[in-house]
Amino acid sequence: MVARQLQATMSADAPKATALSKAEKKQRFEDAFNVIRDDLLEHFSGQGMPEEGVEWYKRNLEYNVPGGKLNRGLSVVDSLEILQNGEISEEEWFKAAVLGWCVELLQAYFLVVDDIMDQSHTRRSQPCYFRLPSVGNIAINDAIMLEGAIFHLIKKYFRGDPIYVDVLEFFLDTTYQTEMGQMIDLITAPEDHVDLSKFSLEKHSLIVVYKTAFYSFYLPIALAMLMAGIPPPSEPVAVPNLRNLQSTSNKMPTEPYEIAMHILVPLGEYFQVQDDYLDAFGTPEQIGKVGTDIVDNKCSWCICTALALASPAQRQILEENYGVRPPAGVDGTGPEGLGEAERKVKEVYRELQIAEKYKEYERNYHQRITTVVDQIDEQKTGLKKEIFTGFLSKIFGRTK
Amino acid sequence: MVARQLQATMSADAPKATALSKAEKKQRFEDAFNVIRDDLLEHFSGQGMPEEGVEWYKRNLEYNVPGGKLNRGLSVVDSLEILQNGEISEEEWFKAAVLGWCVELLQAYFLVVDDIMDQSHTRRSQPCYFRLPSVGNIAINDAIMLEGAIFHLIKKYFRGDPIYVDVLEFFLDTTYQTEMGQMIDLITAPEDHVDLSKFSLEKHSLIVVYKTAFYSFYLPIALAMLMAGIPPPSEPVAVPNLRNLQSTSNKMPTEPYEIAMHILVPLGEYFQVQDDYLDAFGTPEQIGKVGTDIVDNKCSWCICTALALASPAQRQILEENYGVRPPAGVDGTGPEGLGEAERKVKEVYRELQIAEKYKEYERNYHQRITTVVDQIDEQKTGLKKEIFTGFLSKIFGRTK
Repeated sequence: MVARQLQATMSADAPKATALSKAEKKQRFEDAFNVIRDDLLEHFSGQGMPEEGVEWYKRNLEYNVPGGKLNRGLSVVDSLEILQNGEISEEEWFKAAVLGWCVELLQAYFLVVDDIMDQSHTRRSQPCYFRLPSVGNIAINDAIMLEGAIFHLIKKYFRGDPIYVDVLEFFLDTTYQTEMGQMIDLITAPEDHVDLSKFSLEKHSLIVVYKTAFYSFYLPIALAMLMAGIPPPSEPVAVPNLRNLQSTSNKMPTEPYEIAMHILVPLGEYFQVQDDYLDAFGTPEQIGKVGTDIVDNKCSWCICTALALASPAQRQILEENYGVRPPAGVDGTGPEGLGEAERKVKEVYRELQIAEKYKEYERNYHQRITTVVDQIDEQKTGLKKEIFTGFLSKIFGRTK
Repeated sequence: MVARQLQATMSADAPKATALSKAEKKQRFEDAFNVIRDDLLEHFSGQGMPEEGVEWYKRNLEYNVPGGKLNRGLSVVDSLEILQNGEISEEEWFKAAVLGWCVELLQAYFLVVDDIMDQSHTRRSQPCYFRLPSVGNIAINDAIMLEGAIFHLIKKYFRGDPIYVDVLEFFLDTTYQTEMGQMIDLITAPEDHVDLSKFSLEKHSLIVVYKTAFYSFYLPIALAMLMAGIPPPSEPVAVPNLRNLQSTSNKMPTEPYEIAMHILVPLGEYFQVQDDYLDAFGTPEQIGKVGTDIVDNKCSWCICTALALASPAQRQILEENYGVRPPAGVDGTGPEGLGEAERKVKEVYRELQIAEKYKEYERNYHQRITTVVDQIDEQKTGLKKEIFTGFLSKIFGRTK
C-alpha cells in the first residue's frame, strides 16, 4: 500500500526547464536505463558470472525496475534542471539520471520485498515477480541485488566527486528509515490479527513518513540539491512536528535541506492521507477501484481519526467490525454493495464526520506547506520555489 | 550450507597479542555487543519509534546476531592486535569491535534470508527466526534492517575517520558480491530440479568464492588492515585464478590487499571444498551429522569433480541418481544405511577416486597458500605472517 496513486500525479506538472516536451524528457530518461542496465550486466559478467546468471539478472532488472511511471526518478532530473535554470551539461544530466534510476532501483527493491511479505498477486498489471514459476523465494535475493546495484552505480559514477559520500549517506540513511517504517507498519497492522489499540494518528504519521515520504518525496529532491551544489547539512535535518504544524516547535526553517524536509515530508504524509481518505470516501469511478482498507485491517488515517474521536459505544462498533472480511459468497451483498461489517464502520465514519475532518486536515497542511514555500529566499538558499509548486498544485488538486 | 564448520575452527589458533586469554577476549568482544545493540536501539527509539517496535528490533538483534561462534567478528580484533604488535588503545579496540560486529551483522542478515529461501527449520540449535510464531515473512524486513544497522554503526563510529569511505566501500562491495554468489548458487542447484549440466568445478569455485570466501575470510582481515593504517588499494584487487594456482597468471602478489586476497580467497575455497569432501567421505563421528549433499542436489566439489572425470556410463549413473531422495520409509535401508540412489553415486565417487583427487587438491592449495604467506615482506607491506598462519594450520589440520 505504498502511496498508491503517487505514480499518477507526482511530476505531471513538471516545469519545462529545457526545450524538450514532457514525453521527450521521459523517453530520454527511459533510454538512460538501457545504459545503466548494461553497466550492471557488464560488471556482473566481468566478475566471471555465467551467461545464465547474466540472463537471470537481466530479467530481474527489466521486470522490476523500469515499468512504473518513473516520477520519483524523473523528479531528480527535473529538479536539477530547475535549480540550474536549465543550464545542465550532458554529463550532469546523465549523472542526475543515474541517481534517478537509483531511486527507482530502491523503489523496485522495496516493492519486490513488499509483495513477497504481503503475498500479493499483481503489480503494475502483471504477476508479482516472485509469482513467476521459476522465481519463488529467489526473489528475496534478487530484490537485495537491486539494492546492491544502487551502490555499484554510485561508486561507478560518483567516486571522486565531492558529493560521493553525501550521496552514499543519503541512500543508506533513507533505506534504513524506510525499513523502520515498514517494520512498524508490519507489526501494527498484521492482516490476520486486528488490534485497534495499536492504531493512532501518531503511529499513522510515523509509518507514512518513514515508509514512504522520505524515499519518495524528500530523497529525489535532496539528491538534485546535492548535484546543484547546495552544501549538505552538517547536522541531521530535523523532521517537522506533523501533529501540530502550526506549533512554535515548527519554527520556519532556513537551511535549504531543512526547508525541503518541511515541505516534502508533510506533502508525502498528506499524499498518503488523501489516498486513505479516497479509499473510504472516493467513488469507484474516482479512484478506479473499490477501497479495501477497512476489510484489510489497514492502519488508515480514517480509522486512526475515528478512534481518536469515538465514544465508547462507537469504539465498540469499530472494534467488532474493522478488519472483518464478509463471509465467502456474501461479498458485495450488503447495502451499497458492502459487507455488513464494512458498512457499520463507514456509518461510524459518517457519524464522526471523518470527511469533514479530512477537509480541515487538508486546509491545515496546504496552508502550512504553501507558507514554507512562499517564504523561501531563493537567493540565499539556492533553492527555486518552482521545484515545489508543481508537486503542490497537482497533489492538492487531485480530489477535484 | 554456508561453510558449515567454519565456526568451529576459524580463530581457534588466534595468537595471544595481549595478556587476555582466548576466553577473556571473546567475553570482551561479546560485551561490546551490548553497547552496539543499545546504540542501535537508542537511535531507533530516538527517531520516535514506538516501544513495541523497540522491543521487536531488540529481539531481532538478540535472536540473530550474537549466538554464533563469532570467529569472523573476532578475527577483525585479533588481526588488528597482531598488526599493531599488541599496541592497541581502548578506542581502537572498540572501533575494531564495531567492525567485527558489523561483519557478524552481515552474516546474520545473510543467514536469516538464506533460511527463509531454503525454508530451513533450525539454526544454531534453535528454530529459524522466521519460524517464530509472530514473525513469519516479517523476517525479510527484519533481516534487511540488520544490514541497515551496519551502515548506521559505521557512520556513527567512523564518520570523519580517514578510512570511513574505504570501510563503507568494503562492506557495500562485499555485500553485493555475496548476493551474486548466492544468486548463482540458487539458480544452479534448485532443490526441486536436478540438472547436472549446470554443475562444473568453475561454477563451484565461483559460487564458493563469492558466496562465502569474500565476506567470511577476506573482509574481516581487510578491515583490520585498514584500521592498522595499511593504505587501501587504488585499483580493485584481482581475485587469483583458482583453477590453476601454479599458472603464471598468478604471479606472486606484492600489494598488501592483493596478498591477503591471494591467501584468504583460496583458503576460503579450500575450507568449503573440505566441507564438501567431509559431507561425502567423513564418518558421522567425524562430522557430527550425516551428510546430505547428494540427496539435496548440492553443487558440491565432489560431484563437480566426478562430472569432470566420468565416462559416459558413469555420468549416466550420476544423472539418474544425484538429488534423488529415498522413497518415504526406505531412508537408511540400503547398504551402509544409505538410500539406493545415494549408494550408486558414492560407488562412482570411489571408482573415480574422488578422495585421492581431494588429497591432491589439498596438497596443491596448501603449497600455494603457504608459499604466498612465506614470501610476505613484513617490513614493506605492514602485514604480519602471523595473521594468516593461525588460520592455515587450523584449517589444513581439521581432517585429522
